Amino acid sequence: MIATPYLLYLGNSTDPYAIKTARGLAIFRPESCVGEYRTDRCTLTLDLPRLGFADAVASGARTMVLGIVNAGGTLDHNVIDDAIAAMEAGLDLASGLHQRLKDEPRLVAAAERTGRQLHDVRDPPRDLVVGSGEPRAGNRLLTVGTDCSSGKMYTTLALHRAMQARGVACDFRATGQTGILVAGAGVPLDAVVADFISGAIERLAPARYDDGWDLIEGQGSLFHPSFAGVSTGLLHGAQPAALVMCHDPTRRVMRGLASRALPGIAECIEANLATARLTSPNVKMIGIALNTSALDTNDAVALCLRLQDEHGLPCMDPHRMGVEPILEALLGPAEGAARA
Amino acid sequence: MIATPYLLYLGNSTDPYAIKTARGLAIFRPESCVGEYRTDRCTLTLDLPRLGFADAVASGARTMVLGIVNAGGTLDHNVIDDAIAAMEAGLDLASGLHQRLKDEPRLVAAAERTGRQLHDVRDPPRDLVVGSGEPRAGNRLLTVGTDCSSGKMYTTLALHRAMQARGVACDFRATGQTGILVAGAGVPLDAVVADFISGAIERLAPARYDDGWDLIEGQGSLFHPSFAGVSTGLLHGAQPAALVMCHDPTRRVMRGLASRALPGIAECIEANLATARLTSPNVKMIGIALNTSALDTNDAVALCLRLQDEHGLPCMDPHRMGVEPILEALLGPAEGAARA
Repeated sequence: MIATPYLLYLGNSTDPYAIKTARGLAIFRPESCVGEYRTDRCTLTLDLPRLGFADAVASGARTMVLGIVNAGGTLDHNVIDDAIAAMEAGLDLASGLHQRLKDEPRLVAAAERTGRQLHDVRDPPRDLVVGSGEPRAGNRLLTVGTDCSSGKMYTTLALHRAMQARGVACDFRATGQTGILVAGAGVPLDAVVADFISGAIERLAPARYDDGWDLIEGQGSLFHPSFAGVSTGLLHGAQPAALVMCHDPTRRVMRGLASRALPGIAECIEANLATARLTSPNVKMIGIALNTSALDTNDAVALCLRLQDEHGLPCMDPHRMGVEPILEALLGPAEGAARA
Repeated sequence: MIATPYLLYLGNSTDPYAIKTARGLAIFRPESCVGEYRTDRCTLTLDLPRLGFADAVASGARTMVLGIVNAGGTLDHNVIDDAIAAMEAGLDLASGLHQRLKDEPRLVAAAERTGRQLHDVRDPPRDLVVGSGEPRAGNRLLTVGTDCSSGKMYTTLALHRAMQARGVACDFRATGQTGILVAGAGVPLDAVVADFISGAIERLAPARYDDGWDLIEGQGSLFHPSFAGVSTGLLHGAQPAALVMCHDPTRRVMRGLASRALPGIAECIEANLATARLTSPNVKMIGIALNTSALDTNDAVALCLRLQDEHGLPCMDPHRMGVEPILEALLGPAEGAARA
């Protein structure tokens, strides 16, 4: 586990894309972000208090997140100097960069000297085993998508909050670097060795006996030729009782593949159910989650209603409309609603 | 590329399973195996000349293959001593063990001193990228299976030989450790990071413009919950024009999973075609390859005829009956046959 709360490191960043992990944390886990660290050259802000390292520690921060991406995924010397100063002030470090903190001797030496932890969230667990597909106890929901980056993490977290608000025991199970930093734990599925994809998820979401839910962050798409293997292993390892289909209605081509059209929603629902049935014969699709941020409100609502009719499933934009109808499809009406 | 021919190292082995990689080479690449090295304690033989290291070099051997597996996949000190002696005699080393040759300092030092190469065939290439699914030129065939270990490597190699015998340009593309040692090159797909499965195969079998064929060794099964992600990425990366379904008719449950029944052949054919169509819309299943080693000849022939009728595809045991009808389904009658 990575200690929270976090100080989000923006450094000298001027490219909004470069701070997307930090932004993800500010959006999805605001209660765990005490502030942001940025230099005078940084042109960006996440609207968090601007703090130095000592002030951040005084505000309760336990870990500084290097929530930045640069061209090569590497650490430049300014970042290393700042990271050492942060450790000296009492902060652990967490990073989702391709270049590992543990591979930078100055950081390793500083961590030893100061007794701080280095968390490389792209490092998968070392002792993974192959999955078995054996039926296991517990309720699990997995988000799937017509494409990569179609709102799977956001939807999973929205369902997690809504379920918590109902008082249902539940855990968000993270499979990507931002999700892992949001949850404080998880498996960076893209970095797991191919033989262990389903086994990694069986470990991430083990049998549970409390009637609660594991809500598993999906990755990729069965229709994305770069990543469908990951999505397949994730479906098999998750052994989900329920799926939610995530979709960006403004996307015309698969992410990164200019000549490949998106699959239809119906086709994508059917393929995900067929694949999931290998380990979860009674799996159900329970809803559709849209990212309608490019549409005005009327168009967004009209589209949700149309897709709801077309597919016979509740269809929402979790950001604009919440996820209550999807949750209701899963758990029945909320107690308050039932009494109303 | 790993230099051939090979000396096969059996060491002290007494467990037939422990020498399966060496046996694979003796069966599938006999012309490249000049001999076997075994101690007096070894109770096994591959019916190759028993050679010492210097004699092996004198017979032309270039590489000693540590074609053995022990419980932990590790190197014991006898093996290390022998490996050093082999390098001193002039042999490179190749190993498919989990424990890497490169992680054993004595072997690294001996390799430097003697100028020999260490080949860890489980090491995937370091500079893999994600697959694109972009259409590429060339003819590719992929073997798939109802299960793991259902004859995919054997069938692929049988097709390779038969195609070579016809004078058709073709390459065997290896994806497992034995296959890599047979071919002298390839990608150990089980060790590739999940995001790069399809990309690794796009590199392994790149565009070709000579009307020849890449014959790609399949792995796992879409119906094996441990490995279906690998099989999916392999189908997408291979972009195959043709598939051959491999099946062991005596197998009742999936390998390693005592409670999971094998899928039906028809269901497995349909699922593989559906998955392959994402990157190869016109893919065809062209034949069924059975491992009938547990049946007598009459039963084997009867079973092939029955499955041939049932699925409308040529069905053969490549070991007993060759692969000519499958090749004919792919390429048409052989020239000799057409003239006859």
